[in-house]
Amino acid sequence: MRMVDLIEKKRDGLELSTEEINYIIEGYTNGSIPDYQMSALTMAIFYKGMTEKERADLTMAMAESGDQIDLSEIEGIKVDKHSTGGVGDTTTLVVGPLVAAVGVPVAKMSGRGLGHTGGTVDKLESVEGFHVEIENLEFIDLVNRNKIAVIGQSGNLTPADKKLYALRDVTATVDSIPLIASSIMSKKIAAGADAIVLDVKTGAGAFMKTLEDSKELAKAMVRIGNNVGRKTMAVISDMSQPLGYAIGNALEVREAIDTLKGEGPKDLTELSLTLGSHMVYLAGKAESLSEAREKLERAIKDGSALEKMKVFLSAQGGDASIVDNPDRLPKASYIHELEAKEDGFVSEIVADEVGTAAMVLGAGRATKESEIDLAVGIILKKKIGDKVQKGESLAAIHSNFENVEEVKEMLYRSIKLSDTAKEKPTLIYGEITE
Amino acid sequence: MRMVDLIEKKRDGLELSTEEINYIIEGYTNGSIPDYQMSALTMAIFYKGMTEKERADLTMAMAESGDQIDLSEIEGIKVDKHSTGGVGDTTTLVVGPLVAAVGVPVAKMSGRGLGHTGGTVDKLESVEGFHVEIENLEFIDLVNRNKIAVIGQSGNLTPADKKLYALRDVTATVDSIPLIASSIMSKKIAAGADAIVLDVKTGAGAFMKTLEDSKELAKAMVRIGNNVGRKTMAVISDMSQPLGYAIGNALEVREAIDTLKGEGPKDLTELSLTLGSHMVYLAGKAESLSEAREKLERAIKDGSALEKMKVFLSAQGGDASIVDNPDRLPKASYIHELEAKEDGFVSEIVADEVGTAAMVLGAGRATKESEIDLAVGIILKKKIGDKVQKGESLAAIHSNFENVEEVKEMLYRSIKLSDTAKEKPTLIYGEITE
Repeated sequence: MRMVDLIEKKRDGLELSTEEINYIIEGYTNGSIPDYQMSALTMAIFYKGMTEKERADLTMAMAESGDQIDLSEIEGIKVDKHSTGGVGDTTTLVVGPLVAAVGVPVAKMSGRGLGHTGGTVDKLESVEGFHVEIENLEFIDLVNRNKIAVIGQSGNLTPADKKLYALRDVTATVDSIPLIASSIMSKKIAAGADAIVLDVKTGAGAFMKTLEDSKELAKAMVRIGNNVGRKTMAVISDMSQPLGYAIGNALEVREAIDTLKGEGPKDLTELSLTLGSHMVYLAGKAESLSEAREKLERAIKDGSALEKMKVFLSAQGGDASIVDNPDRLPKASYIHELEAKEDGFVSEIVADEVGTAAMVLGAGRATKESEIDLAVGIILKKKIGDKVQKGESLAAIHSNFENVEEVKEMLYRSIKLSDTAKEKPTLIYGEITE
Repeated sequence: MRMVDLIEKKRDGLELSTEEINYIIEGYTNGSIPDYQMSALTMAIFYKGMTEKERADLTMAMAESGDQIDLSEIEGIKVDKHSTGGVGDTTTLVVGPLVAAVGVPVAKMSGRGLGHTGGTVDKLESVEGFHVEIENLEFIDLVNRNKIAVIGQSGNLTPADKKLYALRDVTATVDSIPLIASSIMSKKIAAGADAIVLDVKTGAGAFMKTLEDSKELAKAMVRIGNNVGRKTMAVISDMSQPLGYAIGNALEVREAIDTLKGEGPKDLTELSLTLGSHMVYLAGKAESLSEAREKLERAIKDGSALEKMKVFLSAQGGDASIVDNPDRLPKASYIHELEAKEDGFVSEIVADEVGTAAMVLGAGRATKESEIDLAVGIILKKKIGDKVQKGESLAAIHSNFENVEEVKEMLYRSIKLSDTAKEKPTLIYGEITE
């Protein structure tokens, strides 16, 4: 087999076989296939796409290119949740304890990563003492005992995907649905998921800006999952504005606790219940989605979801008292209110820009070396459709700087007002199961 | 400027500016742009093509990427001829002395190269003593004095093209008309041509198999040439079977001498006169094509073309007596006749395979390290449309091996007979001047 012939085959729109895709991914991982051939192939894929079979083959080849997590010692069906990413997305912090409370095993491997705020691990580390540096055996034991644990990323997971993503990033081949879908799914599979619930974001603050593209990506991932024997479904949810009110690490932990108490933002609560219901259903812990949802609503009402959060935090060294006393979470020195300059209705909240403002405050990492300030961030006071009076606060800026004029300017530009009322955006655009 | 943005621009079908193309070619030549970005770009070009302006810019950027030959000290308009390559193509050996005889300066830089037979330099070296290792000054002086000289390739001509071609070869991006056309034209321009006559071959033995593709390539090159200020035209000629009868180095020199005497194969003579007429006309040595042709026909008839061959060979150390005594050229030990196995008409001569048979005999190089046997090769005795009787010779195999069964088998497979007469193929399919 010669790589140049495989590039030509794809270039001309023909289907690559399982054997050929394995040859490509193995060769690329071990370095026998050079970057310059791989980038020519990915550009051909950009134009010619991939068949369902090719996508499944690519996903499995990448999943198997390095270490794979063995979760077989954990009882039950391991359902993973994945979000394609947005601003102020606190669902993981809510959904984890919530579904664990009704018996779904949550065995989460999570990283730090770059972005507007930290990753799930960073957020959880705003709870004093909490740590994710635990051994595999302890991790599995914790999940079996408490139904929930988070472990930091370790080992050499999907090296083919890492290498390929870095290459795509510099060769203008990121925007390819088959490649995006295979990349995400390979990581979930290598991390040991039996079933997968996807939260595909859509709108200005999401990777996929249009509903059409978001649906296509969701379908691509759902089909890959089901084709490789992992029950997979996707919820398409709104990211035309940030989810919930909080953007920032400790701020989001507090918002998650509020939500587990039944006092959280309506959108975050609804999306968490929707995603959670599918997880409970796929894990076989309910006969129907409505039964699953009832169980979750009950876990919030009877306090068992909140209790699960405490157990989870203290099992990994965290100070669980923050659940009852969220004021013990890290706090910023200053809270600056962003006062509305006029009367009106919120017509737009450019999620990306709000996220960037949070990063400027120190909530996220611009580069791998950046230090995160866990205390800082933004609490939105108004969302799209809300009425605003001049002088009312649009947002509270939690900062360790006294002067936040730059951030205020950014937020004034991104939170737009209009004279007439605008409808609140749809939260959930649909669910894709096949 | 960032290469990734330029790849994306081309990927999305937008036109790259002159400045952007210069940035790409300079960066690729000096190594600051890596192969993996260049191969992604060339794959995008494969699908999206290039505008006329982009093609001209790419050609000039590659022509200027290394050394350029300065022929300004040579009097007159320097017209170069280029063939896209075929089997048994002896035209350069004929056309050079022919147009020089009527006053067109022929300043040829030529190489060895891989292929069925050697390059022009190899062929000429079958004349004892002839050599192309001459200084630039001597080369220019020879052309001014004799109107013809050949110099071996030296210096660092079009390094960008060399690097890019090697990359395209392993990334399935060779078959791109804009890239092929720019590659050829950049080399002609770097070699100092004021005007260019292109011989674009078409048919089974050519790089371009269909007339449509050949026309497209011809048009692409002609437009590049004219857009960058070099008068350029193309002749589209047949390569459905080998040109002339001889395939082999010394054999082709002998065929060229016959043709300069007016005793050559009809197709080789006609194509040489056609290409030569355009060169004479572009060099301003005739008012019209018909006047140019008359001059060339006269140069054959009155012996001045043959005389020019002698002057040319002896000026570069060659034994010019071979012109009058071609038997002094290197000779193979054996001549095996390929006898027809049945009566019929020649319906097909697969040029590629006949070329490969010549290479097996030793006439060409399979790898850079191969040694060429200048004496060996094949003389076709029949061409498409000719009537054949059982036992008649289809071809003479000039070999230094006693046993040529393998070559005979190859030739029997490639020279096909049929019961009914087949029309002789058209020799010249058209001329493209804009």
